[in-house]
Amino acid sequence: MSTQYTIGLDYGTNSVRALIVNIANGAEVASAAWTYTHGSQGVILSRDPNLARQHPADYVIGAEITIKHALAAAKKSVRGFRADQIIGIGVDTTGSTPLPVDANGQPLAFQKKFTNHPAAMAWLWKDHTGVNEAAEITALAKKRRPQFLAKCGGTYSSEWFWSKILHCLRTAPEVFNAAHAWVEFADYVPAMLTGTEHPDRFIAGVCAAGHKAMWNANWGGWPDAAFLSQLDPRLGQLRGRLTPRVHSIDRAVGGLTTAWAGKTGLPAGLPVAVGALDAHLGAVGSGVAPGTLVKIIGTSTCDIAISPTARKLADVPGLCGIVDGSVLPGNFGLEAGQSAVGDIFNWFVNYIQPGGAVGTHEALTAAAARLQPGESGLLALDWNNGNRTILVDQRLTGLLLGQTLYTTPAEIYRALIEATAFGALTIINRFEEFGVKISSVVNCGGIAEKNPVVMQIYADVTGRPMKVSRSAQTCALGSAIAAAVVAGAHKDYATAQKRMTGLKSRVFKPNAKAHATYKQLYRLYRKLHDALGTKKGSGNLYDVMKQLIEIRTSVRK
Amino acid sequence: MSTQYTIGLDYGTNSVRALIVNIANGAEVASAAWTYTHGSQGVILSRDPNLARQHPADYVIGAEITIKHALAAAKKSVRGFRADQIIGIGVDTTGSTPLPVDANGQPLAFQKKFTNHPAAMAWLWKDHTGVNEAAEITALAKKRRPQFLAKCGGTYSSEWFWSKILHCLRTAPEVFNAAHAWVEFADYVPAMLTGTEHPDRFIAGVCAAGHKAMWNANWGGWPDAAFLSQLDPRLGQLRGRLTPRVHSIDRAVGGLTTAWAGKTGLPAGLPVAVGALDAHLGAVGSGVAPGTLVKIIGTSTCDIAISPTARKLADVPGLCGIVDGSVLPGNFGLEAGQSAVGDIFNWFVNYIQPGGAVGTHEALTAAAARLQPGESGLLALDWNNGNRTILVDQRLTGLLLGQTLYTTPAEIYRALIEATAFGALTIINRFEEFGVKISSVVNCGGIAEKNPVVMQIYADVTGRPMKVSRSAQTCALGSAIAAAVVAGAHKDYATAQKRMTGLKSRVFKPNAKAHATYKQLYRLYRKLHDALGTKKGSGNLYDVMKQLIEIRTSVRK
Repeated sequence: MSTQYTIGLDYGTNSVRALIVNIANGAEVASAAWTYTHGSQGVILSRDPNLARQHPADYVIGAEITIKHALAAAKKSVRGFRADQIIGIGVDTTGSTPLPVDANGQPLAFQKKFTNHPAAMAWLWKDHTGVNEAAEITALAKKRRPQFLAKCGGTYSSEWFWSKILHCLRTAPEVFNAAHAWVEFADYVPAMLTGTEHPDRFIAGVCAAGHKAMWNANWGGWPDAAFLSQLDPRLGQLRGRLTPRVHSIDRAVGGLTTAWAGKTGLPAGLPVAVGALDAHLGAVGSGVAPGTLVKIIGTSTCDIAISPTARKLADVPGLCGIVDGSVLPGNFGLEAGQSAVGDIFNWFVNYIQPGGAVGTHEALTAAAARLQPGESGLLALDWNNGNRTILVDQRLTGLLLGQTLYTTPAEIYRALIEATAFGALTIINRFEEFGVKISSVVNCGGIAEKNPVVMQIYADVTGRPMKVSRSAQTCALGSAIAAAVVAGAHKDYATAQKRMTGLKSRVFKPNAKAHATYKQLYRLYRKLHDALGTKKGSGNLYDVMKQLIEIRTSVRK
Repeated sequence: MSTQYTIGLDYGTNSVRALIVNIANGAEVASAAWTYTHGSQGVILSRDPNLARQHPADYVIGAEITIKHALAAAKKSVRGFRADQIIGIGVDTTGSTPLPVDANGQPLAFQKKFTNHPAAMAWLWKDHTGVNEAAEITALAKKRRPQFLAKCGGTYSSEWFWSKILHCLRTAPEVFNAAHAWVEFADYVPAMLTGTEHPDRFIAGVCAAGHKAMWNANWGGWPDAAFLSQLDPRLGQLRGRLTPRVHSIDRAVGGLTTAWAGKTGLPAGLPVAVGALDAHLGAVGSGVAPGTLVKIIGTSTCDIAISPTARKLADVPGLCGIVDGSVLPGNFGLEAGQSAVGDIFNWFVNYIQPGGAVGTHEALTAAAARLQPGESGLLALDWNNGNRTILVDQRLTGLLLGQTLYTTPAEIYRALIEATAFGALTIINRFEEFGVKISSVVNCGGIAEKNPVVMQIYADVTGRPMKVSRSAQTCALGSAIAAAVVAGAHKDYATAQKRMTGLKSRVFKPNAKAHATYKQLYRLYRKLHDALGTKKGSGNLYDVMKQLIEIRTSVRK
């Protein structure tokens, strides 16, 4: 039998990538990426800092270009490679990134009259325009359906499906009224590739539905129409037009259409797996298992753990979600995350542009690496894009404290890295406080891959070894694993993960002295975190600046 | 009688200026400035951000160069000008900037073995190395001499005379032991010009002595030896070697020496007024009077008001000082201030270097001017160099809150300006809370002179018109006024001020809408101010970020 490959299609915030993987050993033989052309690197912005949209045309053209280029690259890198050695396609995307579709399941943004209407586009995960609607949904659910909130950390987020749709209904009714239904980006792409966009055939993944749209088999799927109607009767009516077919990633949504086969050179009928959120398939591609936390660190982070369905699991306050089968069948998928990590560093480099020519990520990282923990006297909160876990509050913003007249860009850059590490520690602590033991942390994503300084700081802050996934493309790899499973080439995910995933040999081990300083700093971080992020925060902050100065003084000695 | 002139010698943080003024009308006919050559623009720094020193050699050479150049410039600008038309010299300097001197009153730093020893140099006003000693002095005074603290705001500052000397005693005993006495920069220069450095002839100004060294005629001058000895017996002994001659600025310390006359071309014997702190003579040069607050806005600010000695005046908590005769004879001089204003903007431009080529003060100011109050959602504290009034705490640091992923350098720059304006308002409020009515605010100094955007924000934040002193060199002008008074050319300060000072025609009037927004923002500023700066601050800050977002949203609409 000739070597078999699958394609993982990974849609990120700024670009899409196609990865071709050898299913026997996980070797990534070829890949191709393409940056979206609409807006600023694919993101359509406005004066409102909460708004972030994408044009779905980028999703269509992106699939064609990256698959074609990846196949061409495979022909160069593998002697005798043929497109018919590809046995399946898996898809992961950002989310919750819902888009309105017409009665045929086609994006409204493809209609001429809506092509430039921001509300008719895809509402990117980091769009927070629905912040008031999120509060409204949370308030209603608290009163009428507390079970909904218990599975998503106690607060429904402005980043999620219903907040965005309700905000569209309120602020762009012409779009809401023209939409037959709304679908997640992760479900739209597999449907597009297999011609199953029509509502009669459309399949949604449990991953996005369960974590972002309060879908749960225990209460009959989507939130009930009575509940949605209390928000607005038209939302209750929309519920009846959402697909009843919601599945885990262990099945295909259909086969590749002849049209897509023609465009890409792939065999028609190729199985395309149920789509899932990038982080969830990234966790699969990083070897997620009970006891292993996978951190996908990119513009934001997603922190994924799983817990066998057979074991009793309490609801965990502040977690984005606990959904049966959302990551791997037979396990509860637990999702936490930080609303911005790389985005904070990017903000500092691209918006503040510090230090003139020396203000690149590389130069700042190198200078930050020369500093000792606590040496700058700075402390930051990692909330420039709100806080996803554990506060679940988008109405939070950044904070930098401890500046003197001599504070340097490198010191601030390091403080921002440390802030994201403190946020990461807060999440790990929350998992363990509620009985989800974390015995291993595997990191993946661009920052884990490229920035050993960040990884060392994470190890020093958390006091835990930081492992890094072998693949530089774990989301795409996870999609390729899903493709291999739905194609029947591996009997289950455990087998497929064993064959196709691995770790890098370099493990970042915590330095005891650095960890001791970070324990002091973390106490101060939690003090600010609680004072500004909760109503219960222990009041007076009189000692915060002073303790930072004490720590600075003792470190500099 | 031919036209008469005086020279004001104004020693700033980075440079010294000589200004030649027509005493009949205040016309500034010539000036010359010279930047110090030691350290970075005259400031010797170290790894310890608290340390800031100056080499007194810069003071000597600076007087010679600037007087010579100013005279040469006057010869060009005034037909027939002769050096013998100069009738007196006045001197102002930064402070508290004490320096150790030998038994002849010569700076220790002039000795070869001490020339590079930071502790033997002048301890610049913004040196905060004595922060622990300041706390120790405060604690002892609180217990044993509460009257000392009542006149300096309740806390003895690390910026002041005794904190610096005690810190030298503790950390550089070789310097302390070699010093016969310590003198203020403002007193050293007049002594140097008149050859009265020797302890037997040395005269100190009441301005620095009263505001910075707890000198008060009510308790017999300098703090008593018993008190100082409790800090350290050697400090008690030092007291006996400090001059008993402490005077207001209505007399001369002596006449210009032949040597200085030779070096500069001025007539020997020219009267040199008692020296004073730059801000105090800046207030004189801005027309300070009862009811008029003068803000000298430079790297830091000094806020000066006076109150007739005849009127009863309560001690004002948090004020740097209340000293009889320190600004003008017959009035209590009241000094408040902000430890950094221009220095904060300079930090942002020079250390952070935001926005590459567009990150100049001019470009950032222009971009900041286009923003509405509240539009950025940012709020900052102006504490990068501690807080002088009303908290009197150098162990405070900067804070910036409200950053998103789209926050720009111009937004931060404006937030920093606003933070200094909120700090200014806090000082005005404190004056009025304790019965010192402020009916007029006159600004002077480089920023008031050059930056109308800052002045407009100050008007909008405080809700008061901001007037600007006519002179761009009010400190030097104040020194020139002192010279005219001690030379006997004007019968008193009121007469001299009437003749020699004035206001610019442009007054910055508060915009009602902007002021309304700033009232909301100021409440949040005070909340952060009190939570981080006092032990009484109402702890929970849960609403701060949220209210900033509300304000931002409503402003952007």
